[in-house]
Amino acid sequence: MSRHLEVAIFVWYTTVLLVSAKPKQNVVKSYSELHKCELSEELKTEIASYDSVVNDIIDFAVSGPFKGRAYSELERFIDTFGPRVSGSEVLERAIDHVINITRAEDVKDVYTEEVEVPHWVRGHESAELLEPRRKSLSLLGLGTSVATAPDGVTAEAIVVHSFDELDAMDNDKVKGKIVVYDQPYVSYGDTVRYRSQGASKAAAKGAVAALIRTIAPFSIYSPHTGMQRYSDNVTKIPTACITLEDADFLGRLYRNKEKIVIKLVMSSTMDTKTSRNTLIDVKGTQHPEKLVIVSGHIDSWDVGTGAMDDGGGMIVSWAVPIILKELNLRPKRTIRSIFWTGEELGLVGAFAYAKKHKVENDNINFVMESDEGTFKPLGLTVGGSQHARCIVAEVLKLFSSINATALVEEESPGSDIVALVSQGVPGAGLLNANEKYFWFHHSEGDTMNVENAEELDLCAAFWTAVAYVIADMSVDIPRK
Amino acid sequence: MSRHLEVAIFVWYTTVLLVSAKPKQNVVKSYSELHKCELSEELKTEIASYDSVVNDIIDFAVSGPFKGRAYSELERFIDTFGPRVSGSEVLERAIDHVINITRAEDVKDVYTEEVEVPHWVRGHESAELLEPRRKSLSLLGLGTSVATAPDGVTAEAIVVHSFDELDAMDNDKVKGKIVVYDQPYVSYGDTVRYRSQGASKAAAKGAVAALIRTIAPFSIYSPHTGMQRYSDNVTKIPTACITLEDADFLGRLYRNKEKIVIKLVMSSTMDTKTSRNTLIDVKGTQHPEKLVIVSGHIDSWDVGTGAMDDGGGMIVSWAVPIILKELNLRPKRTIRSIFWTGEELGLVGAFAYAKKHKVENDNINFVMESDEGTFKPLGLTVGGSQHARCIVAEVLKLFSSINATALVEEESPGSDIVALVSQGVPGAGLLNANEKYFWFHHSEGDTMNVENAEELDLCAAFWTAVAYVIADMSVDIPRK
Repeated sequence: MSRHLEVAIFVWYTTVLLVSAKPKQNVVKSYSELHKCELSEELKTEIASYDSVVNDIIDFAVSGPFKGRAYSELERFIDTFGPRVSGSEVLERAIDHVINITRAEDVKDVYTEEVEVPHWVRGHESAELLEPRRKSLSLLGLGTSVATAPDGVTAEAIVVHSFDELDAMDNDKVKGKIVVYDQPYVSYGDTVRYRSQGASKAAAKGAVAALIRTIAPFSIYSPHTGMQRYSDNVTKIPTACITLEDADFLGRLYRNKEKIVIKLVMSSTMDTKTSRNTLIDVKGTQHPEKLVIVSGHIDSWDVGTGAMDDGGGMIVSWAVPIILKELNLRPKRTIRSIFWTGEELGLVGAFAYAKKHKVENDNINFVMESDEGTFKPLGLTVGGSQHARCIVAEVLKLFSSINATALVEEESPGSDIVALVSQGVPGAGLLNANEKYFWFHHSEGDTMNVENAEELDLCAAFWTAVAYVIADMSVDIPRK
Repeated sequence: MSRHLEVAIFVWYTTVLLVSAKPKQNVVKSYSELHKCELSEELKTEIASYDSVVNDIIDFAVSGPFKGRAYSELERFIDTFGPRVSGSEVLERAIDHVINITRAEDVKDVYTEEVEVPHWVRGHESAELLEPRRKSLSLLGLGTSVATAPDGVTAEAIVVHSFDELDAMDNDKVKGKIVVYDQPYVSYGDTVRYRSQGASKAAAKGAVAALIRTIAPFSIYSPHTGMQRYSDNVTKIPTACITLEDADFLGRLYRNKEKIVIKLVMSSTMDTKTSRNTLIDVKGTQHPEKLVIVSGHIDSWDVGTGAMDDGGGMIVSWAVPIILKELNLRPKRTIRSIFWTGEELGLVGAFAYAKKHKVENDNINFVMESDEGTFKPLGLTVGGSQHARCIVAEVLKLFSSINATALVEEESPGSDIVALVSQGVPGAGLLNANEKYFWFHHSEGDTMNVENAEELDLCAAFWTAVAYVIADMSVDIPRK
């Protein structure tokens, strides 16, 4: 992996993982009232005047010719390609497919930009509890995890409930052991540090492997995968998530003073491949150099099918240029749809884009990302200044007919767009009814069965209309 | 398998599977009003007089010395033994454990009765989609399924949505194929016939294997196992359940005219072993020959841990003699707790009991079974005459403090007790808030994580107090 990738991954861990999926609180339905937004009557009147075009877009996507199309395109995409892991051939074929279906819609301004991405390939994985009784433990190795020796590692396990509990232990007690974390799930944002840092913290105390309670609030014996990062100066030890059920079981055994012995076998390979970000432009009529970006990522984990993470986000971002083309709508600024590559292995495509386009990023007016589900749309999570949020809140008033007017303040409203938002670009994520998102996320359960055609229609309509209004109105979204 | 077992299994399929798990409708909170129950004022006064003892039992189990005990005993049992498949050594050790913990409570009247049970052992199982793209399909072979050849069976698959669709097909279209059923889930009672008869119906048309969409309303890519039965005069073909997600995926491929090729490998062995029903008697003070039975089954499937199915039902039935002993309560009739063996492989223990005790079954006053979850108790599902139900409804009025007064009419209120209920014994099942029961049932998700200590306390209290009142009151529960 190149230094660039390492930097990207480091930034990801230190900024995004801890904030990207906080519980959605502070839903402020009337943001403009609460924050005493001081928009001119002229601007408010102008924004309100988009009511007609917004409703045209909604009608077209929800009950008109586009109805069901987002779902059917997603279904074809998912059923044809399945999971699309960063660096894989199937991901590149999936990218080609999206280019082809875009051109088939007579939307021609579609192109790709090459990106060097990590290619981590899971091999055989198994874990067996040998003592106090034999039991197979379901597991999923974590992205970038090293392999065990071919015949595995067999060791006694200790179970800790928190990093504090581990820190308080003598190194002698940890040395040579498998560390099992049975930390409770608080929220994804709070708890994911056990997945991302668990191996490194265990290795620093001499452990030979780390097994982490899956980062999810609910399970039907479902392990979830995800990224982890080895700290500098620690031995890279194999690491995987196990189910909530087994982690809790092992925790009970340990606290009942049972001796726990586990045999862990994991194999994996890692190298670097070339992939592509995919871009579709709807050129602006007055300020083609100014950009409103809508985006989702096209790669996925290797388990499940990535229908939810992030097939849905990709397809609603794909819908934007298609719907605008069909409705003959061309905004004043350019709307760019981007399907990021290499997201799951470290936001690699997004960071590459931000770097490659650095000189023109001042021209990005607004950047939107959908990567936390495309269930019923509720509004937007918005980063940026209060004035920026006031304008977006005014735009969201246009969506009262579909009850998608909520604005949630979020410093970092999306994972892939952190590279741009951290440069000061105002940005937003799709706020949606994603209460069960982390039930399926990064697991075999992320399939078409999670998706819903009507909800995707609503998301496609909302995403298209928000982007259109912001790209077309007279004022830019101000930066901080 | 003996003829006796075959008969038991046949009876099970033709009576229980189709009725045992119907959606709980017709909840009648005031059964006695709706049905114009004509109980004497004297009987009503007598039943009402149990208010004090019922509350003593509830206090003892919910907030007194027994609080948390049902859960802790279940946890120890489940964590020590894990799944307890019919005919396995671990089941016999689990039975010994329950005997030991009973005696440790100074409850001495505990004994076992030997039963010949089927012993079906799952071996290696795998299914791989080879065309149109490679994908591993998660599966669980069904109880009594035969194995494939050692190198598996590779065949083209057809997908049918219903038995009607299969019936309408030319045999030529089915011959040599793997039949995949992607039937929708309506209710367990309605849909389980695809699991129990799917292989036989496919085999009758020449199929080489049958894969059935798991009988569950919700999934995180979770296959569920369960029993199936080969009809006479058909070739026994290997059969398994696959996940909702994969069944739906295969259905879409098939209807999109894709050629589907699957490689299926399954191994299993089947023989017969000796197991035991376990009985604990609290001898009646006035009519020791008359019985009120409380029961659950002690065996489980080989996946998950059988904490819910039916560890919970067993432990609340175990709690009955323990709580009565602690409270020095001895009813007029005998209360017998029974932990059935061999339930999952065909209600074998229960049928053996009914046969062995045939001459004394006239003395069974009431038979209760908990085998559909021990979540928050709501009341009882009751089979028998209207007069019997009227008396039980009057007893249930004693449970208004814990909101467990509902009576649901059910011809067959439990699976294991069908052998007795079909002989005319009035019987009841535990009505509880089991909306998610079939999410976990017969799957790896059936673990302690599903169980809740407070709910188990309430169930133990309810189960004990209902049994006590019915075993102690002056009138028998009348037969039809």
